[in-house]
Amino acid sequence: MNHIVSERIRQTPPSFIRGILKVAESEDVISFAGGLPNPISFPQEALKKSMNRIITEYGSRVFQYASTAGLLSLREYIAEKYRGQYNLDVCAEDIIITTGSQQALDLIGKVLIDKGDSVLLEEPGYLGAIQAFSQYQPNFCGVALQEDGPDIAQFEEILQNRKVKFAYVVPNFQNPTGITYSEEKRKAVLALVRKYHCILVEDDPYGELSFDGKVRGYISKGELNESILLGSFSKIVTPGMRLGFMIIKNERLRKYINTAKEAADLHSNIFAQYCLYDYVLHNNLQEHIQNIRYLYKEQCESMIKAMEMYFPKNITFTRPQGGMFIWAILPEGQSAKALFEQAILKKVAFVPGDPFYTDGRVANTMRLNYTNASKEIMVEGIRRIGELCK
Amino acid sequence: MNHIVSERIRQTPPSFIRGILKVAESEDVISFAGGLPNPISFPQEALKKSMNRIITEYGSRVFQYASTAGLLSLREYIAEKYRGQYNLDVCAEDIIITTGSQQALDLIGKVLIDKGDSVLLEEPGYLGAIQAFSQYQPNFCGVALQEDGPDIAQFEEILQNRKVKFAYVVPNFQNPTGITYSEEKRKAVLALVRKYHCILVEDDPYGELSFDGKVRGYISKGELNESILLGSFSKIVTPGMRLGFMIIKNERLRKYINTAKEAADLHSNIFAQYCLYDYVLHNNLQEHIQNIRYLYKEQCESMIKAMEMYFPKNITFTRPQGGMFIWAILPEGQSAKALFEQAILKKVAFVPGDPFYTDGRVANTMRLNYTNASKEIMVEGIRRIGELCK
Repeated sequence: MNHIVSERIRQTPPSFIRGILKVAESEDVISFAGGLPNPISFPQEALKKSMNRIITEYGSRVFQYASTAGLLSLREYIAEKYRGQYNLDVCAEDIIITTGSQQALDLIGKVLIDKGDSVLLEEPGYLGAIQAFSQYQPNFCGVALQEDGPDIAQFEEILQNRKVKFAYVVPNFQNPTGITYSEEKRKAVLALVRKYHCILVEDDPYGELSFDGKVRGYISKGELNESILLGSFSKIVTPGMRLGFMIIKNERLRKYINTAKEAADLHSNIFAQYCLYDYVLHNNLQEHIQNIRYLYKEQCESMIKAMEMYFPKNITFTRPQGGMFIWAILPEGQSAKALFEQAILKKVAFVPGDPFYTDGRVANTMRLNYTNASKEIMVEGIRRIGELCK
Repeated sequence: MNHIVSERIRQTPPSFIRGILKVAESEDVISFAGGLPNPISFPQEALKKSMNRIITEYGSRVFQYASTAGLLSLREYIAEKYRGQYNLDVCAEDIIITTGSQQALDLIGKVLIDKGDSVLLEEPGYLGAIQAFSQYQPNFCGVALQEDGPDIAQFEEILQNRKVKFAYVVPNFQNPTGITYSEEKRKAVLALVRKYHCILVEDDPYGELSFDGKVRGYISKGELNESILLGSFSKIVTPGMRLGFMIIKNERLRKYINTAKEAADLHSNIFAQYCLYDYVLHNNLQEHIQNIRYLYKEQCESMIKAMEMYFPKNITFTRPQGGMFIWAILPEGQSAKALFEQAILKKVAFVPGDPFYTDGRVANTMRLNYTNASKEIMVEGIRRIGELCK
């Protein structure tokens, strides 16, 4: 079969995480490996009401084929939100609804990457993006993440020496590190992409999950015409319905993305789009998000407390201000993958850092998810990992 | 922007049909251009019941992230149906749920086509497949469709002279022509793909919409290991929920497709999958399909009667035994696109044949959809087109 399939897919790594999740899935394993929102954060009853309402209200339209860009009223809602919440000049026609943010990543790769093109991304970077872009065989240029965002000197060096098609960043509560860009770094990144005429792709699935409730602005503010913003409803309403969106001011780029979207799945589930629109219309989404923030802040604090108690001092870790992940760093030279092998025998799982790097290194880092386990379970899991590190 | 986007997307045609649909969309236009199922065929009330039931029964699981291959119980249902209805050796693990059949086409292109690879397809062929495959820059090899299926001599000539990656066929009530392969042609195609070791992709969105209720077997029967079958719920339950599936017996190929699917959208809407599974569990889908067959048979007969009455004799057309489309052929040398321009002024629309060919010809053919208009409206629309052809 290898001689039959495309070069493209032979070079695309299957998701390492999905492999791990299978191991971590069994009931007796405490798993910090996934990236699942806490199920108590899904507004089930309200969504149920919305479903019944839209069938009565719109009838067969919620079951019929629909337009590629997505439901106009939902796009109008998103545009209004971005004008109000982020002070961005966005209208409905700038928006394309996608089948989750993952589809947006695939479309970006498809439309922008020719084989061998340079793509700048954070190191460690988001696994789903690495996987999606890999299919189009780019040359990945990783920029090290520091506590307050990317290494700016390295960022510039890459833009200076390579013809970079686009830079992909997750400025808020990044996956996998939980790191958030400082204001200074945001400004520096903006200056750089402006200077080198580089398209900026800002992915923001976690931005609203800030523990302090503060809204962090977009790097590309006022520069939207040369950038793409990605958003998602997965972490604030439901991931199972697979609804995300892209904001693209540049009309020609948007048309290309639209053509790729059409070829990818014609349009995203229209029932889900109506349902989500009805939900935001009849419910207070901000209040709902506030509840998720409280929940995750508490869970994050519990995990950090447990890590302070049970991890040896030579393991350092990030202290996220939002989002879903903590990033831990083992002493140099240690392998997180080796630790994972031991951990799974002790019935506890996390994601070793390896797949978040594009240079194939043996990583001494690991990602821990805190949104999907109770406090007691969390403490026990961290204790077991700590035991192994002694 | 052209110098920034990928070669791949510059060579992908935006859907001609979606362009036409925008023109045909206005309320005063009689449109035979779309490919929409009749909305009265959507089992709205039953789906509503299913939605309420699955939320009660499965709770947060219907809103959470899910596995890439799709809901196991739905895949088991499909496998059982294929074992029973088509006598095929299929089990749940051979099946991947896709975001509509369109996604399956994209995944096939992504996983199988390297730039310049030869792909055999029907001429005229399904537009969505041409668009999806185009993104991966194949060399299209068209095989002319005759009344009873593909020109077998031409089919063999291509397999003999080219290294064909796969052959893509729609053997039942093809889109755009409505043509169905005869038993002889099916056997001949099977013998050819066997002889030349060519992967066969059989797309079957319309197979169950046969006016005679007869089930037509798959070409690849017993040969599944070297083939891919595509199915869809769009024409028998609802297209808006975007649910299709691929049946792939070859494990290695299936794994590659699964990796591509993961990178494309992680998984298809899981709520929709639960909903559909509950629907087939609690309702008689066969009875429902039988009702759609009656409806479409009547509509097809009405359109043919109108064409016999109002079209001049030098226009020929197919007489489908199922599906959603009639294919009409104008006298040689005439342009269906030119006719379309005149027709739209008379407030009636169809799809000129041009985009269904990969050789860029000026087509004297056109596709007419009969599933989505009332009899009276249909007669009036055909009358107007007939007037223009006199």
